[in-house]
Amino acid sequence: MIGIKEASIDVYHGLLALQHRGQDACGILSFDKISNGFYLDKGHGLVGNHFSEDRFSKLSGDIAIGHVRYPTVGICSIRDAQPFFIESKGGIGMAHNGNVSNVCEIKEKLVRNNWYINSNSDSEIILKCFADGLSHCGTVQGLFDAVKYVFDNAYPSYSSIAIIAGKGLLAFRDTRGIRPLVFGKKITDGKTSYAFSSETVALNNLGYEVERDVRPGEAIFVDMTANFHSQQIYDDEHKHCMFEWVYFARPESEMEKRHLYHVRERLGSEIAKELKHLKADYVIAVPDTSRTAALSIAGSLGIPYKEGLIKNRYIGRSFIMNCQNQRENCVKLKLNVVHPNVKGKRLIVVDDSIVRGTTLRIIAGMLRQAGAEEIHMVSTCPPIVAPCFWGVDFPEKDELVAYEKSVSQIRDEMGVDTLTYMTMEALKKAVGIDDLCIACLGGKAPTCTKHIAAFANMRKSERNSGV
Amino acid sequence: MIGIKEASIDVYHGLLALQHRGQDACGILSFDKISNGFYLDKGHGLVGNHFSEDRFSKLSGDIAIGHVRYPTVGICSIRDAQPFFIESKGGIGMAHNGNVSNVCEIKEKLVRNNWYINSNSDSEIILKCFADGLSHCGTVQGLFDAVKYVFDNAYPSYSSIAIIAGKGLLAFRDTRGIRPLVFGKKITDGKTSYAFSSETVALNNLGYEVERDVRPGEAIFVDMTANFHSQQIYDDEHKHCMFEWVYFARPESEMEKRHLYHVRERLGSEIAKELKHLKADYVIAVPDTSRTAALSIAGSLGIPYKEGLIKNRYIGRSFIMNCQNQRENCVKLKLNVVHPNVKGKRLIVVDDSIVRGTTLRIIAGMLRQAGAEEIHMVSTCPPIVAPCFWGVDFPEKDELVAYEKSVSQIRDEMGVDTLTYMTMEALKKAVGIDDLCIACLGGKAPTCTKHIAAFANMRKSERNSGV
Amino acid sequence: MIGIKEASIDVYHGLLALQHRGQDACGILSFDKISNGFYLDKGHGLVGNHFSEDRFSKLSGDIAIGHVRYPTVGICSIRDAQPFFIESKGGIGMAHNGNVSNVCEIKEKLVRNNWYINSNSDSEIILKCFADGLSHCGTVQGLFDAVKYVFDNAYPSYSSIAIIAGKGLLAFRDTRGIRPLVFGKKITDGKTSYAFSSETVALNNLGYEVERDVRPGEAIFVDMTANFHSQQIYDDEHKHCMFEWVYFARPESEMEKRHLYHVRERLGSEIAKELKHLKADYVIAVPDTSRTAALSIAGSLGIPYKEGLIKNRYIGRSFIMNCQNQRENCVKLKLNVVHPNVKGKRLIVVDDSIVRGTTLRIIAGMLRQAGAEEIHMVSTCPPIVAPCFWGVDFPEKDELVAYEKSVSQIRDEMGVDTLTYMTMEALKKAVGIDDLCIACLGGKAPTCTKHIAAFANMRKSERNSGV
Amino acid sequence: MIGIKEASIDVYHGLLALQHRGQDACGILSFDKISNGFYLDKGHGLVGNHFSEDRFSKLSGDIAIGHVRYPTVGICSIRDAQPFFIESKGGIGMAHNGNVSNVCEIKEKLVRNNWYINSNSDSEIILKCFADGLSHCGTVQGLFDAVKYVFDNAYPSYSSIAIIAGKGLLAFRDTRGIRPLVFGKKITDGKTSYAFSSETVALNNLGYEVERDVRPGEAIFVDMTANFHSQQIYDDEHKHCMFEWVYFARPESEMEKRHLYHVRERLGSEIAKELKHLKADYVIAVPDTSRTAALSIAGSLGIPYKEGLIKNRYIGRSFIMNCQNQRENCVKLKLNVVHPNVKGKRLIVVDDSIVRGTTLRIIAGMLRQAGAEEIHMVSTCPPIVAPCFWGVDFPEKDELVAYEKSVSQIRDEMGVDTLTYMTMEALKKAVGIDDLCIACLGGKAPTCTKHIAAFANMRKSERNSGV
Repeated sequence: MIGIKEASIDVYHGLLALQHRGQDACGILSFDKISNGFYLDKGHGLVGNHFSEDRFSKLSGDIAIGHVRYPTVGICSIRDAQPFFIESKGGIGMAHNGNVSNVCEIKEKLVRNNWYINSNSDSEIILKCFADGLSHCGTVQGLFDAVKYVFDNAYPSYSSIAIIAGKGLLAFRDTRGIRPLVFGKKITDGKTSYAFSSETVALNNLGYEVERDVRPGEAIFVDMTANFHSQQIYDDEHKHCMFEWVYFARPESEMEKRHLYHVRERLGSEIAKELKHLKADYVIAVPDTSRTAALSIAGSLGIPYKEGLIKNRYIGRSFIMNCQNQRENCVKLKLNVVHPNVKGKRLIVVDDSIVRGTTLRIIAGMLRQAGAEEIHMVSTCPPIVAPCFWGVDFPEKDELVAYEKSVSQIRDEMGVDTLTYMTMEALKKAVGIDDLCIACLGGKAPTCTKHIAAFANMRKSERNSGV
Repeated sequence: MIGIKEASIDVYHGLLALQHRGQDACGILSFDKISNGFYLDKGHGLVGNHFSEDRFSKLSGDIAIGHVRYPTVGICSIRDAQPFFIESKGGIGMAHNGNVSNVCEIKEKLVRNNWYINSNSDSEIILKCFADGLSHCGTVQGLFDAVKYVFDNAYPSYSSIAIIAGKGLLAFRDTRGIRPLVFGKKITDGKTSYAFSSETVALNNLGYEVERDVRPGEAIFVDMTANFHSQQIYDDEHKHCMFEWVYFARPESEMEKRHLYHVRERLGSEIAKELKHLKADYVIAVPDTSRTAALSIAGSLGIPYKEGLIKNRYIGRSFIMNCQNQRENCVKLKLNVVHPNVKGKRLIVVDDSIVRGTTLRIIAGMLRQAGAEEIHMVSTCPPIVAPCFWGVDFPEKDELVAYEKSVSQIRDEMGVDTLTYMTMEALKKAVGIDDLCIACLGGKAPTCTKHIAAFANMRKSERNSGV
Repeated sequence: MIGIKEASIDVYHGLLALQHRGQDACGILSFDKISNGFYLDKGHGLVGNHFSEDRFSKLSGDIAIGHVRYPTVGICSIRDAQPFFIESKGGIGMAHNGNVSNVCEIKEKLVRNNWYINSNSDSEIILKCFADGLSHCGTVQGLFDAVKYVFDNAYPSYSSIAIIAGKGLLAFRDTRGIRPLVFGKKITDGKTSYAFSSETVALNNLGYEVERDVRPGEAIFVDMTANFHSQQIYDDEHKHCMFEWVYFARPESEMEKRHLYHVRERLGSEIAKELKHLKADYVIAVPDTSRTAALSIAGSLGIPYKEGLIKNRYIGRSFIMNCQNQRENCVKLKLNVVHPNVKGKRLIVVDDSIVRGTTLRIIAGMLRQAGAEEIHMVSTCPPIVAPCFWGVDFPEKDELVAYEKSVSQIRDEMGVDTLTYMTMEALKKAVGIDDLCIACLGGKAPTCTKHIAAFANMRKSERNSGV
Repeated sequence: MIGIKEASIDVYHGLLALQHRGQDACGILSFDKISNGFYLDKGHGLVGNHFSEDRFSKLSGDIAIGHVRYPTVGICSIRDAQPFFIESKGGIGMAHNGNVSNVCEIKEKLVRNNWYINSNSDSEIILKCFADGLSHCGTVQGLFDAVKYVFDNAYPSYSSIAIIAGKGLLAFRDTRGIRPLVFGKKITDGKTSYAFSSETVALNNLGYEVERDVRPGEAIFVDMTANFHSQQIYDDEHKHCMFEWVYFARPESEMEKRHLYHVRERLGSEIAKELKHLKADYVIAVPDTSRTAALSIAGSLGIPYKEGLIKNRYIGRSFIMNCQNQRENCVKLKLNVVHPNVKGKRLIVVDDSIVRGTTLRIIAGMLRQAGAEEIHMVSTCPPIVAPCFWGVDFPEKDELVAYEKSVSQIRDEMGVDTLTYMTMEALKKAVGIDDLCIACLGGKAPTCTKHIAAFANMRKSERNSGV
C-alpha cells in the first residue's frame, strides 16, 4: 500500500494488484516534503476507473498510501473511504485493513478527549486514537508509544499504515495478526525505498524484494532518509484469518512464508480424499478462485479437468436489467456454460466456499438446464456458520446457508446430487498453520467479545438503513 | 446483435457477451414503431461503461441493433462508430462486422450518385450502397434486390444487419461467409422473436434457441409481425476466417455446427504430436484464450497443467505509467507470475498465436527472471506472415515477427529454448473445415484483389496519421 | 448565424450575441471542404456553457451555421435541437428561426415521398422539404427552385440558412418576412466573407458591415469563392412581427433600417402622452428590456428615473428551492428591491409587455411590501389576447391575462393602482411600420389559417405531455 | 453567509445574492446536530453552476456557512477554497472575508504549536489560530477568549463566521472593521434564527430583518437554541474600506446605516460640480455599477442619460477566442455599443473607478470607432495609486494606470478628451464617513505594516507562478 519515491504512481500500480481485496471505493494520499502538503484523492469504484493520468499531477510527493475499500461496516459514502488525515498533531494520514470491534467504546472516549468524529470509518477512529495517544511526535519512540496506545484501546483486526507529515511512514499490525501485512525493499540508483502491502503480489509487480510479514503486535517506522526502525510492542497468540487462505488472497501471493498456490493445491488434494468413491466424467471449477483446487482434485482423482463455466471478464459492474430482483439474470450473463463439457456429463463442481448459497443454486440450475447428468458439489472451505466481526463481510447468521443445517439439507437446497465440505482438520493441514482464526466456522473468537454485541447491533442497523 | 421486443436492452445484454470482439467503441440503434423514431446512442470504450440504466429510456422500440467496434480501418472517432442510419429511402439503420476491401471505388460511385459520405466507416458505405440500390422498399423482393446490389458492388467481408424503418429487420452475409453470423428464435407468451449475432454465446445468454448460421450469400428479412423470409442470392465458395477458430470467437460459442471448445482441444491434441520429445515439468498457458489448448496438450503429453501466469482481471484499460513507451511495464502489471510454478521449472508455454511477438518476448523475460529453467513456446496457430484485409487488425508485414523469418530466428528473438508452430494440415484437421480463409498464413486471398493495393495504402496513411 | 473563414468560432461568437433569442439549446454545424466533412455539435442550455475551446477543434471548416433554440413547439430534447443535416442529395445542413404552421401536412407529403422524419423540429421539415424539391444541386438556379418549392409548400414563418456541401451557403426568408434576417460583408486581407444573422448585433460584434435585411420571399446564395447570387422568388405583403420591436430584439440592433433603441424610446414617448395626469415620485423599470422606454417616459414626464428593481445577473438558470411551485421565491431571488427608491414613493413602473401577468403580480407585491405608496403600471405593448403560431411562445388563450378581460379587471388582478396599455395606433407610430403582424393583439393572421387548428392541437398535446 | 434552520439552502440562496463579491470558487459547510456531522461541498466557479438540487441532500443540518471566493492571495485551487474545518478541538468550521497581512508570521507559530497547514488560504490560518487559542470550548467565554487570541495574533482584515460543532455559530469582525459584516434575525413559527452576511442584500432576500453591523472588534455567539451572546473585545479606530462604497457592495445593500444607492447618487452629484463647464449631448455609463452615479450626474447637469454601452448578460465566463492575448476581443463581445446614442455625439462617460485602465482604453476606442465626437471620462473614485493588502485584489503599483502619473498623462493614455477624477474630500462627503481606509488612494495603512513587505513578496511570487 505504500512506496517511497514517485510514490503515488507506485501506490496506484500496487492498488491495481490489490483490487480483488475491495472494489467499492479507492483512495490515495500523498505527502510532498517540498510543499509540506498532503494531497488526497478518493473515488467510488475501481482504482483504474477513478484514477487517470492527470489526477497524479495533484498527488505529488515521495510518500503515499492508498486503499481499496471492501465495505464491512458503514454505508458506502465517499466520506467513509480511506485514507484519512488530520491537521493537528503535526499532520497524520492513515489507511487500514480490518475491523475495530470495540469501535463504539473508543468513539466515546475520543469525543470526551475533544476529538470530532466525521465519518463511519474505523480508519478515522484508529487515526484519531493514534493521535490521541501521541504526546510527542518528534521521536520514533513517541510514535511507537502511540501505537501501544492504539493496541491498548482498539480491539483487532487492523493492519495500518500511516504518513507522519515531514517525518516518515509508520506501519503496524494488530496484536493477533488477523489481517495480513508484508513489506519489501528496493534499491534504485543507490537509494533505498520501502513498501508495505496487504499482499506480496503488489510488491512483486513494483519490483520490490519481499522482506517478511510485519509481525503481530509489531510497529515499523521508516523515516524520510529510509532508516528502518522496528519495535515488537506486544507478543500475543497469532490468529491469522483462515478465509485469506481459502478465498481472499491472490494465488500469486505468499503469506507467512507459504505460497497461496501451494495451499490451494493442498486444499484440493486433501478434499480429493473424500471424493474417491465418486464416478464422474469431468471436474469443473466455478471461476476463478477455485480453479487451482479443481485442477488439483482432477489430478488426484485421475478425472479430466474441463472448463465448464467461463466468466465474462468484461462485465464487471455493468448495468444488468433486473439484476437486483432476479439474481439469476445476473449470474447467467456473468457466467457462460461451455455446453459440450456439460451436456450429458457427470460433473464434480468445485467452489472455494459457500456463503449464502444463492449463486451456487443458480449455477446448479444452469448446469442442469444445459443437460448435466450428475452434479457433485465440492466446497474447499468448511461450512460457514457465523458472521465475522474481524474484517470479512459475511452476512448475519440467518442468511448463511449452512447455519443450523445438516449437509444433506444444504445439498437438497442447492439441488445437487452430492455435497462435500472440507473438514477443519484437512483445512489446517492444507494451510499448515494450527492457530487460524476460525470464528466463522464456529471456532473461538480471536479477541475479547465484550463489545461484539454492540458492534453487531450497530452493523445490523446500518445494513438495514443502507442502500 | 439484434432482438425483437424490449429490444435495446436485449441487444445490450448481447453486446456484453460479444465484448471480446471489440472494445474500442459501442453503439445501439433502436426503432420505435409507435413514435416512428430511430434512437441512437454511441460511445467510446466498453459497453458496460458507456450504457447505464437511464440511457435505455431513450432507446425505446421493439427493434434494435448494436455493435462493438474493433478498429481495423480509420481513426477511432465516435463519428466512425456504428450503427449508422440515413433519413432518405424511408429510413434505414445498419451495423456490420468486416472490411469492405474495395471501399474507395464504391465511395466514388456513391458520391457520383449524390450521396454525401460523412465518416470513415465501411458501415456507412455498405448502408449507402444498399440505399443506392434500393428502388422500392415496399416489398421484400425490393430489399433482397438491394442486397444483391451490395453483393455486386462491395467485396467481402461483411456480415450486416439493418433496420428498415417501419418494416423490419434485414440480415445478410457476404458471398464468401468470411465473418460469422448466426441467428436464433425465441417464443415468449406465444410471440415469436428473432435475434442475429456474430456468435451463439449472445443468443444463449438471452434465451434464444440457435437456429443456424446465415449462409454465405444469403439475405434474411424478418418483418414487424415476425414473418421470416430468406433468399440465397449467390452461392459462392465459402471461405471462413481461420483466426475466428484459433483466437477470435469465444470457447463457449458454436460456429458452422462445431463447438469452439472442441476445436481448441483438437488444436492442442494435434500440436501435442509435435511435442512428444520434450522433457518438461509443467504445461502453462498465456491466459486466457490458450487455456483450453494447453489443458489438452498437458493431457496428451501426461505433463501436469499449472497456472503459471495469472491475468489481473481488474486492469482492463486502466492508466498505467509509461505503458506507451515501455510495454514491459504494461505486461508486468497485467500478468502476474505464480512463482512456485515457474522457479526452477522446465515449462511448455502455450499461446494461441504470435503476431508481433512483443508480448511473448516480455513474458519469456518475466518467466526467466522468475527462475524458469527452460521455456518451450507453442503457438496453436501457424506463422502469420501477411496482413489481413478482410476484418482482422494485423499490422503491416514488417511488424509481423514471422514475416520472412525462419522458426529458429523467431525462437532466438523470443528468447525461448524451443518454438513449435501449428502446421497448416493440423489446423485444418482440428477445425474440420478445408476451405478456410488463410490469406494471413500466406494462402490465397478470399476475394478479387484488384483494389487491395489502394485499400492497403489508405489504411497505411490512416494508421500513420492516427493517434 | 453564419460566417465564412474560421467559421465555427465566428458563429459561436455570433451566437453569444444572439443568446437572448433562445436559451434552451444550441448547436453549430460546420463544413470543411478539405475533408468534405460536416461536423455537428449540439447541447442543452447556454452557448457559453456548452461550447469550450476543445470543441472547436472538431468543428473545422470555412462554412458554419449555428442556432440557439427558443422552444415554441416540441418537447425539448437534443434530437430536436438545430442545426440538422442530411446525407442524401449531396449533403445539406440547415437551421431556421420560426414556425411552420402547416407542418403536419408537409410531414405527410414527405413520408409519402420516402423521407424518414426523425425529430419534432420544424427545421428538419424545412430541410427535407427543400431536399425533396431539389432535383439538381449542381446549379444556383436548382437551389433557388428548391427554395421556391419550400415557399410553395411551407407556410411562414421561417428565416433559414443552409450549407450545401461543397457548394456554399444559402439563405432565404419566408414570403411574409415575419422573422428577421440580415446579412453583412467583411473584407479581410482582400478576401470577402459574408455572414447572415437574425440581428445586426452579431454582425457588429464580428466586424461585419451590415449590408441589408434579406427581403421577404428572397433567396441568397454565396458560393465557395464568395460570389453573391440573389433572387426575389415571391413578392408578397410584408408582415414583420410586432413583438420583435417591443421585446425580442436587442436595443443595440437595427432592423428594417430602424434602430431598436429609437423605436423603444418612441414607445416611451408615445405612451407618456397617456400618463400626463399621474402624480408620481419616480419612474422605475422592470429590468432589463423596458429601461429604454422607462428613461424616455421619465424624460417626457419630467419625473426622475430611478433604479427600483435590480436583476441579479449571476442567477441565470441556477437551482432555486421551491421555484417550480412558488414562483414568488424565484422572482424574489432574481430581482432585488432598492429600498430607498421604493419606500413611501409613488411609482410609475414600466414593463415591455404583460403576457401571463404572474411575474408582474409578484413584483407589485414586492414593491408594496417594500413600502411603495402607489404603483402605476405601464405596458409598452398593447394587450396580448391570442397565442402566436408564427414563432413566439405565448401560452394558450386562457393563460393570457388580457384574454377577454377589461383593463380594470387586469389592474385589479395585478394589484396595482392604475394600469396603462399602449394603443395599437401609438405602437405603429412608434415602430414606424404599418404592416406589422399583430395576430397576438387580435389582428389578422399573416398566413392562410387552414392548418392552424391542427397545429394548435398538436402543440397543445405536446405541451401537456412535455416536462 | 449563514442561517439557522434549513440552513444550507438558505446559505445557498444567500450566496446567490453575494455572488458579485467573488466568482472564482464557492463552498458550503453544514453541521447536522443529529448525525453530529460536518458536510462540506466546494467547487470552482459560480454558486449556481456548482450547486444543484441533489447536492443539498448531502448538506443536511440546521447550521451552515458558505463562501464565494474572490482570490486576493494564492493560486486558485479547490484546496484553497473556503470554508475549512478541523477535527480536533471538538470540531470547528470557518469562512472569512479579508486578508491576514501577517500570515507568514502566524503560520510559523502554528507549525511550532504542532498544527499542520494544508493550504494557502488565510481562512485555514485564522481557523487554526482560533483553535490554537481555544483552551476550553465548553463555555461562551472560552470562545470569546479564542477570538481575542486571534485579534492579538492576526492583523486585519477579516470578517469571520464559524461553526462550533454541537455548540452554535460564532461571528467576529477584525478590530478595524475593514470588511463589512451584518446580521439579521427572523422569527418563523415562534422559532428564532439568525443570519450573518457581508451585505444586507442576502438578508433581505431570505426574509431576515436587518439588525445591525457587527462592530469592529466584536464577537457574537448564537447557540443551538438561538440565544444571543456578544462581547466587544477591542474598541479600535474604525477603518471601513472606501472601495466597498465606490464599487464592491451592491446598490441594493445598506452598510453602516447608509443606503449604497444614496451614496452612489451622492458620488454623482458631488463630481457633477466639477463637470459644469462641459458641453455634452449625453451622459452614458460603463455598465453596470456606475449607472446610479451616471443617472445622478445627468440629473445634476441637465444632460440626458442614455444607454450607450450594453452588457451582454449571458457571456459570463464563456470561452472567447483570443481573449487572453487580445483583451479587445473580449471587451467587444461583452459590451455592445448602442450606435444611435454614440455616433456624432459628445459623451460624458462615467465609470466607478480606473484600476489598470485597460478596459476603459478599449471602450474609448470602441466609442471613437462608433463615431463618438467627444469623450469626457469621469471616475467616481479618486486615482488608485497603491496596491491593497486588506482584501481587494488590486495589481502591483506598476500596473496601476494612475501610479506616478498626472491626470493629463492618464487622459492621453486613455485616448479621451477630458478626464475627471473624484476628489478625496468629495468622496468622504458622499459616503458620509471620515475615517475610511484609503491606503490604495495613497492614505495611511489601516494596520501596522511591519509584515506587509513579506506578505507583498509572497503574493508577488504566487502571482508569477499562478496560472
